[in-house]
Amino acid sequence: MTGHQTGNAIVGQAGGPTAVINQSLVGIIEEVQKYPHIGRLLGARHGVRGIIREQFFDLRRQPTNMLELVAKTPAAALGATRDKPDKEYCERIFEVFKKLDVRYFFYIGGNDSAQTAHIVAGIADDAKYDLRVMHVPKTIDNDLLVTDHCPGYGSAAKFVACAFIGDDLDNRALQGVKINVLMGRNAGFLTAASILARQRPDDGPHLVYLPERSFALDQFVTDVEAVYDRLGRCVVAISEGIRDEHGVPWAEKVQVMRKEAAVERDDFGNVQLSAGAGSLADYLVGSLRNRCKSIRRVRADTYGYLQRSYHGCYSEVDAWEARLVGQMAVGYSLDAEQEGSVALVRLPGTTYAVGTRLVGLKEVAPDEPPKTKVLPDKYISEKNNNVLNNFREYVGPLVGDLPKVGWFEQTAQI
Amino acid sequence: MTGHQTGNAIVGQAGGPTAVINQSLVGIIEEVQKYPHIGRLLGARHGVRGIIREQFFDLRRQPTNMLELVAKTPAAALGATRDKPDKEYCERIFEVFKKLDVRYFFYIGGNDSAQTAHIVAGIADDAKYDLRVMHVPKTIDNDLLVTDHCPGYGSAAKFVACAFIGDDLDNRALQGVKINVLMGRNAGFLTAASILARQRPDDGPHLVYLPERSFALDQFVTDVEAVYDRLGRCVVAISEGIRDEHGVPWAEKVQVMRKEAAVERDDFGNVQLSAGAGSLADYLVGSLRNRCKSIRRVRADTYGYLQRSYHGCYSEVDAWEARLVGQMAVGYSLDAEQEGSVALVRLPGTTYAVGTRLVGLKEVAPDEPPKTKVLPDKYISEKNNNVLNNFREYVGPLVGDLPKVGWFEQTAQI
Repeated sequence: MTGHQTGNAIVGQAGGPTAVINQSLVGIIEEVQKYPHIGRLLGARHGVRGIIREQFFDLRRQPTNMLELVAKTPAAALGATRDKPDKEYCERIFEVFKKLDVRYFFYIGGNDSAQTAHIVAGIADDAKYDLRVMHVPKTIDNDLLVTDHCPGYGSAAKFVACAFIGDDLDNRALQGVKINVLMGRNAGFLTAASILARQRPDDGPHLVYLPERSFALDQFVTDVEAVYDRLGRCVVAISEGIRDEHGVPWAEKVQVMRKEAAVERDDFGNVQLSAGAGSLADYLVGSLRNRCKSIRRVRADTYGYLQRSYHGCYSEVDAWEARLVGQMAVGYSLDAEQEGSVALVRLPGTTYAVGTRLVGLKEVAPDEPPKTKVLPDKYISEKNNNVLNNFREYVGPLVGDLPKVGWFEQTAQI
Repeated sequence: MTGHQTGNAIVGQAGGPTAVINQSLVGIIEEVQKYPHIGRLLGARHGVRGIIREQFFDLRRQPTNMLELVAKTPAAALGATRDKPDKEYCERIFEVFKKLDVRYFFYIGGNDSAQTAHIVAGIADDAKYDLRVMHVPKTIDNDLLVTDHCPGYGSAAKFVACAFIGDDLDNRALQGVKINVLMGRNAGFLTAASILARQRPDDGPHLVYLPERSFALDQFVTDVEAVYDRLGRCVVAISEGIRDEHGVPWAEKVQVMRKEAAVERDDFGNVQLSAGAGSLADYLVGSLRNRCKSIRRVRADTYGYLQRSYHGCYSEVDAWEARLVGQMAVGYSLDAEQEGSVALVRLPGTTYAVGTRLVGLKEVAPDEPPKTKVLPDKYISEKNNNVLNNFREYVGPLVGDLPKVGWFEQTAQI
């Protein structure tokens, strides 16, 4: 026990929003109410940027009903930021902390946020200033080290699963090839979650391509043709982060090809053929159409920001756990270390259950690679074009129940 | 009363699936059970194609529990088709009808399907064969003539509204410009539904571009800059079908620009720069980045097939009405005309309520333009860059309740 330091608290949200990051925020807010030695609770607007600009919400003064509504609202109610503070930026943060007598700092985000939290904690420590710094994990990519999984991932995975259930049904109705490009630049967890859509043996996705394995166009075309020959249709899940055999992202390759191909246009100035994941999808469609003349219908979608922002789809388990890690961060800040990150621990046993533990910030944001997690080999098929069913054991409980699907069996004798 | 013709029935589904087209199917199935003079009920697999190939489900033999599940499942449980039968194709359909003693034909689809139904009805009439042909409307585009609105539209509109609620929150969290490209080649109804996402005065979408008005890049850039200057962010809804002042679709223009720009590549064969709506989104992002150097963050998504296929989002009203039009089609086929289409009629009064009426197939699928409906002028802003709030009165009841949003108000005094 290091005792209860009297003072104020600041909470912030950083990086890409999720469906449940506000659950963690509200978990912190409600837990702080229990402790009168924490005075003000300031919500930094747009993360660290709000701290140095001294722009805050007064989080002790928000009505309970509104807090509950905020908890169920996607995105980041405080506003988020992509700022990655260096030492000098962190010094400015610390100056504000001293000025406002801030003794507790809760930062909800990914490993960049853990890194920021660590730098600030170090500055406070050097100044012999008692500051409790707690990192609260969130990311839809599920790529944070140590924790069994990240709050935010289960809800995004559910969106992907629901989307693939519908997309596979659509593809059955109007047959052809459907490619869906999913978020995940380095880790394939979200793309892998698409396999939750499979109920019947011939349900899609029939092929899954991950950033963990190199992607070759020839093999892709061969894979798709084989499925199409067998089923008369094919649904593909593909990470936006797929790379070639040299590790170059395909999205970049497509961009380079387009830039080289671009010509000046006089009527609208330079044609900017920007290539995001949307262009990757287009490129793959074009390649298939070009090489597989027998496949008549090829379509592609890039799910994009809907995966993290769509309002109306979240995992109950994910929401509950996101709330829990926020609450636990407050508890840990009171009676444990100077700094740390809240990790989820999957408990042994046949029924899914989790606990939490406090881990060091350097474990979550190490100086040396690997700085993030990738999808373990044991979940990836030998041919590198699919995710194995054992992945369901990992991801299934994080997503929870999915909508059922009905279909007809009895064909008529004519 | 034309009396109850004894014989068999065929039902089929055509065109792009919707979230509730199976409701109409199940409405027909359950209603047919009431009438013993209708013998077999055959579900044509993949629409008219299943008829000429004589591939059917035996719809009297599907268990009730499965029917209820099918009703709640998106896409088309019988399979759909894009085939647009000519006279000869319809003759083949009629031959199958005669062979199988089919006296009732229910075809669920858009105006092409109404056209098919009409041709088949004409052939039967010429042959003095008593055939009752009923068209059951469905489309997410909401562009069918006569009916107040189309089953399938409300659910797609709800998906779009939920997506924009989340997207606007995401855009508040990490500010910038966000463009979302929506389905609708000729009619802007679905794009217009994005305005349901607005709760606060500064909620997006801040700009809405429709296929009903010409789209000029200069004006678009000016519009976006004005919103961005005012709010520091901007969310845009844009139809995939936007056209230039000559009526040429922008998606085509982008495709032509890309094709002209394409060069041969030796390592992967010809680079096929296919341009769907995804490319339109990329093009608009590129144009904004190029022309508005002050706007730091520009992103775009194309919602694509998720709008019609996502499993887990449907409008209760839409589901109910889709079921109703299926049921009514059976009733109308028994005691009214040789052929017709079921239209929804909005009843006068302050509370939303609908009835149905039987209308002629030629009213739904006329020989002369206009063959489809477009968004009425009264809903479009004077500057052609927005949808007016009076459109809520039309679309609101079709979508029903939307998920609420929480936010903070009390800023802290430092």
